[in-house]
Amino acid sequence: MQCHIRLVLDAQNQMNLRLHCLGKKNVLQKTTALSHALYNSHDTRPFHPGVAGDNYIFRQFLDYKSYTYTYLLADTASREAIMIDPVIETVERDYRILQELGVNLIAAVNTHVHADHVTGSGELKKRVPGCKSMIAGVSKARADLKLRANDSIKFGRFELEVRSTPGHTNGCLTYVWHEKGMVFTGDALLIRGCGRTDFQEGSPGVLYDSVHSQIFSLPKHFKVFPAHDYTGQTMSTIDEEVKFNPRLRRSRSEFIEIMNNLKLPYPKQIDKALPANMVCGIYDEMDKAAQV
Amino acid sequence: MQCHIRLVLDAQNQMNLRLHCLGKKNVLQKTTALSHALYNSHDTRPFHPGVAGDNYIFRQFLDYKSYTYTYLLADTASREAIMIDPVIETVERDYRILQELGVNLIAAVNTHVHADHVTGSGELKKRVPGCKSMIAGVSKARADLKLRANDSIKFGRFELEVRSTPGHTNGCLTYVWHEKGMVFTGDALLIRGCGRTDFQEGSPGVLYDSVHSQIFSLPKHFKVFPAHDYTGQTMSTIDEEVKFNPRLRRSRSEFIEIMNNLKLPYPKQIDKALPANMVCGIYDEMDKAAQV
Repeated sequence: MQCHIRLVLDAQNQMNLRLHCLGKKNVLQKTTALSHALYNSHDTRPFHPGVAGDNYIFRQFLDYKSYTYTYLLADTASREAIMIDPVIETVERDYRILQELGVNLIAAVNTHVHADHVTGSGELKKRVPGCKSMIAGVSKARADLKLRANDSIKFGRFELEVRSTPGHTNGCLTYVWHEKGMVFTGDALLIRGCGRTDFQEGSPGVLYDSVHSQIFSLPKHFKVFPAHDYTGQTMSTIDEEVKFNPRLRRSRSEFIEIMNNLKLPYPKQIDKALPANMVCGIYDEMDKAAQV
Repeated sequence: MQCHIRLVLDAQNQMNLRLHCLGKKNVLQKTTALSHALYNSHDTRPFHPGVAGDNYIFRQFLDYKSYTYTYLLADTASREAIMIDPVIETVERDYRILQELGVNLIAAVNTHVHADHVTGSGELKKRVPGCKSMIAGVSKARADLKLRANDSIKFGRFELEVRSTPGHTNGCLTYVWHEKGMVFTGDALLIRGCGRTDFQEGSPGVLYDSVHSQIFSLPKHFKVFPAHDYTGQTMSTIDEEVKFNPRLRRSRSEFIEIMNNLKLPYPKQIDKALPANMVCGIYDEMDKAAQV
């Protein structure tokens, strides 16, 4: 007897098993909840394997000084890893964790030229031979790889889609991990907030259009991981930000009005951070660049 | 034809489909990677549903003042939610998020009587009618429900197993979410560290035995979510802590030696926090208790 089984996930995340036998379609069809399928009936207490078979590593790190989130993404099979928005002050911690997890950092990826902290890209490159720094080409910052919209950042079997989301700066990029339903929004979209638009090429109208066209258009269940949070929240979802973001849920004109009247103080770190971040956070390079 | 299909996940997270027909076992067996099963071939770019069908909500929150992590766990179907280790200063934030997510808080659960911050249990109970506070019975703190080892905390279709892990305090509990492979360790096990054992009934020998018997015995891929982290890390795994925890990977006698020589300063918040936490963080109740 020739049989063929297909496994498909429907809209309700129900695992559908379809059995095709002897040329007949769907002779047998069984639908079972995925969580139920993981149930092991030999235990007195339901045993579930949890994340035993995760094919990826995801870690969120925090720099307490600048409230910056750094993300580590890795493929457990190839051990290839990337870090998004590393911070110079936490490079030692991050490098130790990379070693403990046994992953190979192939890229230090920045969402934009930060004004509030110095990137750890350069220091990570010093410690990890072969690690490439990446940032938007239009930022004009020094990097091994200049990214553009629609590029893919590959690590092992995974890839991030690069989306251009200017408005906080011209070179702001958002990275979408479609497979895992995650989006790394930099300063374009923060949890119930957004990056300021009053310096560094900022434009509220441009930011509004970026967020609405490139981020709010993602599936509503996608998890939002920003570059910062000042309130102790670690993530959000597209759905929540569309509904509850006090700035970006409004009309374009209301948003522009809000952003043009924030009256924020001059960023504390900007005079130190901007020139350093234009050269990957390496001060030696900054000195050389200043002499040119 | 009578057929029966079983879905089992093997150690490599390969989905095994076993078809039993006509009394014969495993007439047909097909193994397919779970991630592959989610692939939708109609898109030009691989589309994955990400977390669309997640049947749970999990959020990690941070209190910047005490470096405390608060966790929100909810069932997306019944909307029942619990919070682990809420902090009084962040109750407004947490209550707003509960409302935005549309979940019904049925319990504010404490891992122990904290010495470094005041619990938000009482303030959450004021805002959410029906919400029950929970803590270990042996802590002698006031609560709606006094927990013991082997109890289950149920929310919707889910449950946490309660494990007794004394050593930092006598009433320290660890909560295990078997189905999702998560363990909430309070101060018993921190990321690359552990709670101090030099006050509040602390005992390094007892703590060592608790962690090794009740936490390190869990599957090594289980994610560790502690009550605090002071280095900007948000999670770990059992595997990592067994291998890299600089205190607890050592022998029992070495651990006791380390813990007895930490020479830590007296906790800043303890004189305010301990009496408040004995009465759910409600100061009115504290005054009444003091008068008894």
